[in-house]
Amino acid sequence: MHKFYFAPNTCALASHIALAEAGADYTVEKLDFKSNQQNSPDYLAINPKGRVPSLVTERGILTETPAMLAYIAQSFPKANLAPLDDPFAFAQMQAFTSYLCSTVHVAHAHGRRGTRWASEESSFADMKRKIPESMGACFTLIETKLFGGPWVMGEQYTICDPYLYTIAGWLEGDGVAIATLPKVADHFRRMSERPAVQKALAEQRG
Amino acid sequence: MHKFYFAPNTCALASHIALAEAGADYTVEKLDFKSNQQNSPDYLAINPKGRVPSLVTERGILTETPAMLAYIAQSFPKANLAPLDDPFAFAQMQAFTSYLCSTVHVAHAHGRRGTRWASEESSFADMKRKIPESMGACFTLIETKLFGGPWVMGEQYTICDPYLYTIAGWLEGDGVAIATLPKVADHFRRMSERPAVQKALAEQRG
Repeated sequence: MHKFYFAPNTCALASHIALAEAGADYTVEKLDFKSNQQNSPDYLAINPKGRVPSLVTERGILTETPAMLAYIAQSFPKANLAPLDDPFAFAQMQAFTSYLCSTVHVAHAHGRRGTRWASEESSFADMKRKIPESMGACFTLIETKLFGGPWVMGEQYTICDPYLYTIAGWLEGDGVAIATLPKVADHFRRMSERPAVQKALAEQRG
Repeated sequence: MHKFYFAPNTCALASHIALAEAGADYTVEKLDFKSNQQNSPDYLAINPKGRVPSLVTERGILTETPAMLAYIAQSFPKANLAPLDDPFAFAQMQAFTSYLCSTVHVAHAHGRRGTRWASEESSFADMKRKIPESMGACFTLIETKLFGGPWVMGEQYTICDPYLYTIAGWLEGDGVAIATLPKVADHFRRMSERPAVQKALAEQRG
């Protein structure tokens, strides 16, 4: 049994979908970011970074989306969520999750989380103005260079897919029209129809 | 044979050290960031992100430090650079590399790469002023919560160690005195003495 801590509309959705795709036995705990629950003493004892997601396993607690996604794929090999026996293909997959984590998610975060990197209101406004350009550039690279098709890595559905789906869901709010990215838009639509995605979204609303 | 593209004083040092620790057969190619060689057509054909490191393998090209580090560990299992047969321990290791990549390196990058996220000179100056605080907070978390000792993950030397060493080397330039972080400082000193570290540093100078 795993216990999964998330907040709605965050990158935690990627690992949540992966748990559902894997057929994992898990419960969910929703954090309320509006009341800053992620920085409560109880939660900081679970994840001292004050971030989501966190995954409580029988062995201990895991954090960080790329690590958690690889863990889910390796722990539930029958779900076939990663090329587990091919270090090169596994690394290509992890290059994609790492790019989403360290470049794309970071670009997005400058819209709401500017206090991590600056202190002045004028800087926050400047950062917000840059989001359509920076997110647009990231997704143009994904659309034209990184996306294999029909899934991110090509024929095999992997942990990259729920992660791309999750961040692609932020595009409209970031001022990037998903319709300008046909492969990403089609992937988003197909992902939306998957039972595991619908299960995770229902659990996040519930 | 692997061909490794790097630039001095970048995160590429982590993977370079890991290649040396693994006993890999590799050659190195130094990029000149001052002449913007990372955005030359020749290099963009290798890595369309215009970043380092890139690792050319017999199978194709890999990018992104956490992915490359895991690939090196998996491809050279005799070097024992990761807990390869334990998905939970592997994920703990990857949570650390992911944190360095997406949070610590990103905090550092606001000192020189502010144009990724803003456009105004006043914002760049504001970002630079924040670096000692943001890098200090990241390394306080590493020192007090994440560092196992004597190596990052505890008794086993892993790919986390060259990555921490690489970023810890930026601390003084970022306004954080490494001496205020005794575990990190001791780790940095012990890393500096390793033959693989000295080999990689010599190759980067050469």
